[in-house]
Amino acid sequence: MNVVLSRDGQVRAMETTVVSAEKHFGQLCSLLAAHTRKTARLRDAGDRLVKQLIALASSETPELRATLQDVAEDLAKVQDYRQAQVERLEAKVVEPLKLYGTQIKQTRAEIKKFKRVQSNEIKQLERLEKLRQKSPSDRQVISQAENRVQRASVDASRTTRQLEDTVDAFQRRKLKDLQRVFLDFVTIEMVFHAKAVEVYSSACRTLGSYDPERDLQDFQAKMWGVPGHFEARPLTDATLGPPASQSAQCTLGGQREEEAGGDDSAEETALEELQGQEQGRRH
Amino acid sequence: MNVVLSRDGQVRAMETTVVSAEKHFGQLCSLLAAHTRKTARLRDAGDRLVKQLIALASSETPELRATLQDVAEDLAKVQDYRQAQVERLEAKVVEPLKLYGTQIKQTRAEIKKFKRVQSNEIKQLERLEKLRQKSPSDRQVISQAENRVQRASVDASRTTRQLEDTVDAFQRRKLKDLQRVFLDFVTIEMVFHAKAVEVYSSACRTLGSYDPERDLQDFQAKMWGVPGHFEARPLTDATLGPPASQSAQCTLGGQREEEAGGDDSAEETALEELQGQEQGRRH
Repeated sequence: MNVVLSRDGQVRAMETTVVSAEKHFGQLCSLLAAHTRKTARLRDAGDRLVKQLIALASSETPELRATLQDVAEDLAKVQDYRQAQVERLEAKVVEPLKLYGTQIKQTRAEIKKFKRVQSNEIKQLERLEKLRQKSPSDRQVISQAENRVQRASVDASRTTRQLEDTVDAFQRRKLKDLQRVFLDFVTIEMVFHAKAVEVYSSACRTLGSYDPERDLQDFQAKMWGVPGHFEARPLTDATLGPPASQSAQCTLGGQREEEAGGDDSAEETALEELQGQEQGRRH
Repeated sequence: MNVVLSRDGQVRAMETTVVSAEKHFGQLCSLLAAHTRKTARLRDAGDRLVKQLIALASSETPELRATLQDVAEDLAKVQDYRQAQVERLEAKVVEPLKLYGTQIKQTRAEIKKFKRVQSNEIKQLERLEKLRQKSPSDRQVISQAENRVQRASVDASRTTRQLEDTVDAFQRRKLKDLQRVFLDFVTIEMVFHAKAVEVYSSACRTLGSYDPERDLQDFQAKMWGVPGHFEARPLTDATLGPPASQSAQCTLGGQREEEAGGDDSAEETALEELQGQEQGRRH
């Protein structure tokens, strides 16, 4: 009977392992699906921004038109990469986690099957006990009951080994799947962000080299019929430095060229602010 | 009268410029605000994922627990950077575009004022014409009317110059603001994505160096009380290569170390798929 009780404890521990995995993997799956959906919505917002940029460009002076069209193209590229990211997250992260649900159900079915075998063993043992009390001298009946106990016990111990194998394989697969799914998640995100950095750097250079002065002359020629109407006037409300200094904004960290060297480049400020805010929010 | 008509044409052109800017900037502002909101929702989804990862970690074996906790920490960092990105987008992109609406309203008010001055000039001209037809010999009355026309004309031409200045400054500011806002937008995005690449690389290395075998032994010891119960058995359903090859997944493009050198690393596949899908979607 001791062996039977110890088996019962093992089954409970196995059930706990599988039920806990079912719960956590289910939640993980829906949270990763939500992350994927929100990413898709960000892509949609980006697509709308691209359309508006193209509309804006068409109503602007030539230099700005060309600049905005280039930037719109870059933004569209980011959305294309985001679309690929969404598709890969679905295929490599959300789907495998969904399939994992099936694997868990199979393991639970195995545990159920074992419980039936185990309860048959207990039933046969109880039957033998009763017969021994009722008719202790009926050797033939007791011997038959002992045989049934014997067979049920052999069944139970074989099923136990099978179940041990199943639960071991389940745990092994769970650990490897968790590693695989998160490794894929992290890689898909990393590759997307790296592509985005590339594309935004290009957009940054395009915008940095835009010079509004030529467009202003074009505007003045169209509006007043006087080319260079404002040429000699100094700009008092200029909020920007000369275009040359703006290209410094487009080089990140260690890649910054010697010639840029502006201590107060927007990118550095951006980095400092990001770090400052990051510390402020949760630490 | 020709001068007056030409002025009328100019005012219409100026109105078109300002009204078109109002429309496009308004739409741009709400689309960039939507992009910022969707980014904030992605951050929220990320925060929930972090919590779930921490919950999952707490129910797992020691090695996996430590690994998942590290990954959760990295994911939380990405959300902190995303929070900083949201705050910066609001302050440097959405807010300036909102303020720009006020600037547009002021310019429209200037145009309205000019229209009043211009219609006064036309009224005085018509009055003079009537007087000349009604009492062509009344020199004094005609002279007074001529003086009023003269004053109205001086007013109109002074206001025209003011309006030209206003619209020129408006256009100049519009071009520079567009450049500034988009340069800020692109820089904020670029800096965020660069930070995300850094953090995900770290998470990728953490996950790549996780070895499930030690956890399996721990699990088996707890479950069956037999350490190393499965040690000798080869794994048939392994979906992963050895841990060493997984670290290749965490190096991007040109930075890949010589030693990794796997042609079919997941990261390369990811890049190829991203590029393939990007071409498939819109080109």
